[in-house]
Parts: sequence; C-alpha cells; structure tokens
Amino acid sequence: MNFLEERIVKDGVVKEGNVLKVDSFLNHQMDIKLLDQMGAEFKRRFADKPINKILTIEASGIGIACIAAQHFDVPVVFAKKSQSINLDGDMYVAEVESFTHKCINHVIVAQKFLSPEDHVLIIDDFLANGCALQGLIQIVQSSGATVEGIGIAIEKGFQSGGRIIRNLGFQLESLAIVDGMNAETGEIQFRDQSKPAEESGQTEEICRSSTLD
Amino acid sequence: MNFLEERIVKDGVVKEGNVLKVDSFLNHQMDIKLLDQMGAEFKRRFADKPINKILTIEASGIGIACIAAQHFDVPVVFAKKSQSINLDGDMYVAEVESFTHKCINHVIVAQKFLSPEDHVLIIDDFLANGCALQGLIQIVQSSGATVEGIGIAIEKGFQSGGRIIRNLGFQLESLAIVDGMNAETGEIQFRDQSKPAEESGQTEEICRSSTLD
Repeated sequence: MNFLEERIVKDGVVKEGNVLKVDSFLNHQMDIKLLDQMGAEFKRRFADKPINKILTIEASGIGIACIAAQHFDVPVVFAKKSQSINLDGDMYVAEVESFTHKCINHVIVAQKFLSPEDHVLIIDDFLANGCALQGLIQIVQSSGATVEGIGIAIEKGFQSGGRIIRNLGFQLESLAIVDGMNAETGEIQFRDQSKPAEESGQTEEICRSSTLD
Repeated sequence: MNFLEERIVKDGVVKEGNVLKVDSFLNHQMDIKLLDQMGAEFKRRFADKPINKILTIEASGIGIACIAAQHFDVPVVFAKKSQSINLDGDMYVAEVESFTHKCINHVIVAQKFLSPEDHVLIIDDFLANGCALQGLIQIVQSSGATVEGIGIAIEKGFQSGGRIIRNLGFQLESLAIVDGMNAETGEIQFRDQSKPAEESGQTEEICRSSTLD
C-alpha cells in the first residue's frame, strides 16, 4: 500500500451505498502534509510533461491543486460550478450531469485563463463516473490547450469514469483506486496498480455532457 | 504599498459598482507564489497566537488557507456553503445572508472538526459586509473553540464588515484594505494601515445571521 492507501485504511470510513468518507483528511478537514506528499507524487508521475498550468474544480480539488502546484511551479485555475450562468466576460462552459445531486451543473472557466499555448494538468480529489472530469477535458480542448495528464487522489474503480478516460488515451494517474468496499466490515479493496489492467464488470453511467458555445 | 497592494494595482481591474476583479491571481486563477507570500505575512502577524487549525469557506478561501497552513503547520477545515442542509452527521450551521446573490445560505462545518481545545485562525479572500465571516465566527464559538484571529486578503474598507469585526474585539488582519475605487480611471485607494484608524462614513449592512441548533 502507498501512503494514501494507508491513510484511507486508517482514517477513511466506508458507508452504505459505496460511499467512502475521507472528510477527516481530504475534503472537509485537509491534512496539508498529506496533500504535499500527493503533490510530490503527482510531480514524479508527470515529470516528463511540459505542464505550465493546473486546472481543478471547486471546491475540494482546490487545496490539492494548490499544494501540488508548488511542486510544478505553475499557477492554478479552478473551474466554477453553477446551476445558472451569470459570470461576465467570455467563458468556456460545459454542461455536466451530477448523479449525486440529480441535476445539470455548468462548469465554467474564463477564456482568458486557457489558451493554445497551455499544457494543462487536471487535478481533482475524486473520480467516479467522470462526468465533471469530462467537462474539464472538453473545456481545455475547446481552448486549444493540451491536456498533459490527469491526477486524481481517489478513483472508484468499480465505476466507469477511469476506464472511459483511459480509453480516450489520457494519462490518468489515480493515487488510490478503490475496487471494492464493504460497509459491514469496513474493508477496502485497492487495485494493485503494478499489474496490467483487467477487464471488469463496471457500471456504465454515460454522462450527458456538452460544451456550450 | 505592500506586495499584495502592488499586485492589485498591477493586475486588478476596477468595475462599476465598486467591484474589484482579482480573478487573474487570486480567486479564479491563483498565483501560488503570491499565496505563499500571503501565508508568510499571516504567520508574521499572528506569530504569538497558539493557532492549531485554520478555518476557511469554500471556494476561493481554500487555496489561500492551504498555502498559509504550511507556514503554521496546521490542518485546514473548510466550511461548506449550501442553500439546503443535507449533510449527514452532526453539523454546526450558521445562516448567512448573501447580498451578492440575494439569498440565505447555510455555512456548515462538521462538529467533529472543531472542539473547545481548538485555537482557530479564520482565513478568507474577501471581506465586505462580513456576513459570511460572522457565520464562521459563530460556528467557532458554538464549538467552544477560540477565534485567535482573522486573516483576509482584501478588505473593502468602505463597507462595514471590517469595522464591526474589529469592534467585537477580534484581531482582524487584512493584507490590503481598499478604501475607494474609481471605475473610470481604474484608480484604487488603499488605507494606510500604519496610521491609527479613523471614523469613516461606511455603509451599514447589518447581517441577519444566526446559528441553528
């Protein structure tokens, strides 16, 4: 187990419905030393990429992205989530379906912060069905910038987001991939990332996601 | 002018209606080196306080708080904003009026992350009427923890939030206090913080803010 998997086993809580609570160290209270270890690990995994900007999405991605940005010496842009669009200026907007909240959200980035010269690392805390992430990828591509890679803290390997993104050819690095959880025993099964990927019976959740003009 | 005031003059944009846009370096795109300078300055100003936790509020406070936390070697807790309350577990909730969005928001922190042993530094990017900040103070006090101080990046000195919070006896440190702006000329007038405070004709905006049980 790596440092993040160890921390998940120590302080994560498995709840009914495949919910993994990591709010004591990652997405409500944040252990900044852990975030710094994660930033160093992202830098190691994307060392050969010419990254000049990190893109994340509010709210819980911001802390991870800012600490990671110190390892890359680049600025961070965070996409805003909104059910309505009322920001002024020219914006890239992607429509993203939220399965958790059963609604359509808009993911928004000001156009002036992404350009064809940008080489972007996308960072977020969780990857499940990948809808929000697909929205971020669309926005980067709309701007003409390059997605150099995607760094995720915790991927739910039993949902389809990771597989879809990898099948699209992106370098997706998840520091921990949870392949199964048991709410009764609290047991968490991590994917051994040293082995080649296997086909699995993942749930398909196709995102209805599109970039608006 | 200090480093933040210089940056505001260089890259901030004054808009009609006393709006100061700092989205190119502070609250949409974030200059991490600037955030690090701000963190060092907060540490200098609160050096004598036994701070063991930083509290902020999503979304744009999170980056500043996380980088500052490295200077204090403490964890960060970020309060969540929600129009509805649907988080599980025991929560501290404050009702906060948003003048910008003309609605009531709930500011929420899980009870397990604040206790009477905690000595809290509250950090946020902007202070105007101070409604959100008063909600955070209420939450800290509800938990029995101590507010050791409040660190703000940019205070709108012509609104009443800063005066109210200082009158309540809190050590409020704003790295830049904007006392006036001119959208036509783009000119920004900063308060000279080396001089004693003067009475000013600030607009009163009394927050309707209360902690829920």
